Amino acid sequence: MVFKKENYQIKSNSMGFYQDLEHIDGMGISAISANLYENKKRDDLVLFYFRKGATYASVYTQSNIKSENIKWNINNTKDKVFGLLVNTRNANAFTGKEGYKSINNIAALLSELLSKKQTKDEEEPKKIKIKNILFASTGTIGEVFPEKKITFVLPNLIDNIKYVQNKYVWMKSAMGILTTDTKPKLSMEECKIMGTSVKIYGLAKGSGMIHPNMATTLGFIFTDAKINSNILKQLLKKNIQNTFNAITCDGDTSTNDMVTIFSTGYANNKEIKSYKDKNLNDFENSLNIVLKNLAKSVAADGEGASKFVTVKVEKCKNEDDAKEICFSIANSPLVKTAIAGEDPNWGRIVMAIGKAKAQINLNKLNISIGEHKIIENGKVSQSYNENEVADYMTSLEIKINIQIGNGKKEFEVYTMDLTKKYIEINSDYRS
Amino acid sequence: MVFKKENYQIKSNSMGFYQDLEHIDGMGISAISANLYENKKRDDLVLFYFRKGATYASVYTQSNIKSENIKWNINNTKDKVFGLLVNTRNANAFTGKEGYKSINNIAALLSELLSKKQTKDEEEPKKIKIKNILFASTGTIGEVFPEKKITFVLPNLIDNIKYVQNKYVWMKSAMGILTTDTKPKLSMEECKIMGTSVKIYGLAKGSGMIHPNMATTLGFIFTDAKINSNILKQLLKKNIQNTFNAITCDGDTSTNDMVTIFSTGYANNKEIKSYKDKNLNDFENSLNIVLKNLAKSVAADGEGASKFVTVKVEKCKNEDDAKEICFSIANSPLVKTAIAGEDPNWGRIVMAIGKAKAQINLNKLNISIGEHKIIENGKVSQSYNENEVADYMTSLEIKINIQIGNGKKEFEVYTMDLTKKYIEINSDYRS
Repeated sequence: MVFKKENYQIKSNSMGFYQDLEHIDGMGISAISANLYENKKRDDLVLFYFRKGATYASVYTQSNIKSENIKWNINNTKDKVFGLLVNTRNANAFTGKEGYKSINNIAALLSELLSKKQTKDEEEPKKIKIKNILFASTGTIGEVFPEKKITFVLPNLIDNIKYVQNKYVWMKSAMGILTTDTKPKLSMEECKIMGTSVKIYGLAKGSGMIHPNMATTLGFIFTDAKINSNILKQLLKKNIQNTFNAITCDGDTSTNDMVTIFSTGYANNKEIKSYKDKNLNDFENSLNIVLKNLAKSVAADGEGASKFVTVKVEKCKNEDDAKEICFSIANSPLVKTAIAGEDPNWGRIVMAIGKAKAQINLNKLNISIGEHKIIENGKVSQSYNENEVADYMTSLEIKINIQIGNGKKEFEVYTMDLTKKYIEINSDYRS
Repeated sequence: MVFKKENYQIKSNSMGFYQDLEHIDGMGISAISANLYENKKRDDLVLFYFRKGATYASVYTQSNIKSENIKWNINNTKDKVFGLLVNTRNANAFTGKEGYKSINNIAALLSELLSKKQTKDEEEPKKIKIKNILFASTGTIGEVFPEKKITFVLPNLIDNIKYVQNKYVWMKSAMGILTTDTKPKLSMEECKIMGTSVKIYGLAKGSGMIHPNMATTLGFIFTDAKINSNILKQLLKKNIQNTFNAITCDGDTSTNDMVTIFSTGYANNKEIKSYKDKNLNDFENSLNIVLKNLAKSVAADGEGASKFVTVKVEKCKNEDDAKEICFSIANSPLVKTAIAGEDPNWGRIVMAIGKAKAQINLNKLNISIGEHKIIENGKVSQSYNENEVADYMTSLEIKINIQIGNGKKEFEVYTMDLTKKYIEINSDYRS
């Protein structure tokens, strides 16, 4: 059965941020607790294991200060990886040489244990090297990385690998990578490459510091398609732009962002030689949908969010201008608090358009909120009725549409409102 | 008596944001209610009148969308002005031709009434033209400008002009220009120009949308020094950089910002021909102090502020880098909420340094909070004691000091914490 595209709904009042995922050949998943949260009983360590290796591609944070695991991943780029280890609670950022060394030690033990496991399980065992492991970390910056707590539970982690996944296995791993997220984030599509059905599954983790270049966002895509790392890289780079790079929560950027796609190749489709090959179109569209669903889930579950907000800027001179105006609105605390207060205070949208550096033509400016025309050709619309718009503002999903009127380019950004809860979450002392 | 410099203290728990101002020759002040706030009984219309005109200079918002009064001021630049009319409640922004026409109508009536008044009062009456009036507005964007309410009370406003000012007259006008500010903002210095004592008095209004380029900030400086408009322009442009352009509240920028300096010339000091003349040094220093005091008051009284925060970035390659890092920290919601929560979460400061585009050298990075060294040469300081810093975080005034270590330039920025009260103020429906 090919999953029906675009039927993924954001329902911010429910647990409705996810789809149920099924099995992907060539993968193993394990999620356990390494007691990183001390007294809280929750999974905090998740392993994604690729029995025969996976081709992969990653995009990482643009911050000048990168966490030690991100540095490790960048330094150790290999064509194939056998494992991705994700830990929460500790970001392993600003932990210096010790933090880096911890990753090295964990990689050494994990690759050794996985090699043994493989020898036992597989017909054609292959020695897994320490450079065949990727790491994702999220949590507090600047605390000593809990290397020993993690190495202590690695045997247990490996014993718990599930080679046949169902929705519960995926859900457990999706929950295990969360921090202050309130909801797990899972999305899936099925599509075809030259007649062969392939699956594209994804998990994400978001919450605070969400801004383009993915701030404290982790996103992992798994596919059974056979696609080489180079093509994956091109596809990810292109499709991250209007998905994970089109969301913002508070404008802050983390040291740990990472979105990675892994291909196990078990679908055994015919080989594709270029990312521009039209036979990849269906795959690319589906990948974009999975990435966008996850990105939207991350925005909708941004810290303290009570409403999911889409800002679309159209008829712009160029995409950069459209993007700049989108983010100027989506990052404006005054716009976001007005939305939280269900106040159709469009003056603040005007303010945010004005402060963006992009060129505008006031006489052609149109602004709509939902279906309601607010500004037409730079003037308050004749049909504007504040009560009607105030009514619309009570919705869980708010759409703001801007037409600049000096070109044909557009961009769309996803964000949430700014509530007292955001302050509560972030001003709570860490402990 | 020459006022002792730098004795102005920020006491964010008190009404201590102001100094008592006295009389300035050549001025008249009137503050009344035009009932712009409907049922609230408060002054909302303030006139500063210069009997024989004043030389002046202004800096305005950098927003692409400027309010109608700002457009009026820019279009009608004259060497001398006779009046500044300030209204609150309505920003006269996005009000189109009608908004502009309203200013014109008010200017026509006000200049006529002032001319008559002058004929009665003065030995050498001078016809005041409509272009001799400046306008400042602050309040909601996009509502019809209350022209009639204002013209209706203009005779009353003029009847109430006080030609002899004391601290109560100044306080009434300082209160009359506020919106959601919780405290009036007044500062003063006295200094000498070539042996002649001159006064520099200032008022400000801030609160939301405070960001460089002065977002919803109004600042008015009055001096009895005799200085031509051209020199005032140079001095203001230069001294706005490390004062009003060094504060941020929420990163939002308004359509209405304006800082203006007026010289009545009544001190009758010897004429100065260039702004670089050393005889102006004392005046310029004092002007900088007044501007900085007002700017700090605006930041300390930012919407919902519970703490006043100073971020200083030193030893930078160039001033632009220092500024960028300052604002990256000072605008970070995660840093600002940590401060609100009295949490010495320095990891968020690291994050904000990392996301700035400026070059850094991690191995030379120093971070202090108050007197407490946190990071030394890129590592957590041996002397770091979280409890001590947590103790410091309970102070009303928080100082963050960063040394980048790749140059000699520095910049300092003033801001406040981000509290639930900010959300409360800004998510309250406007009415």
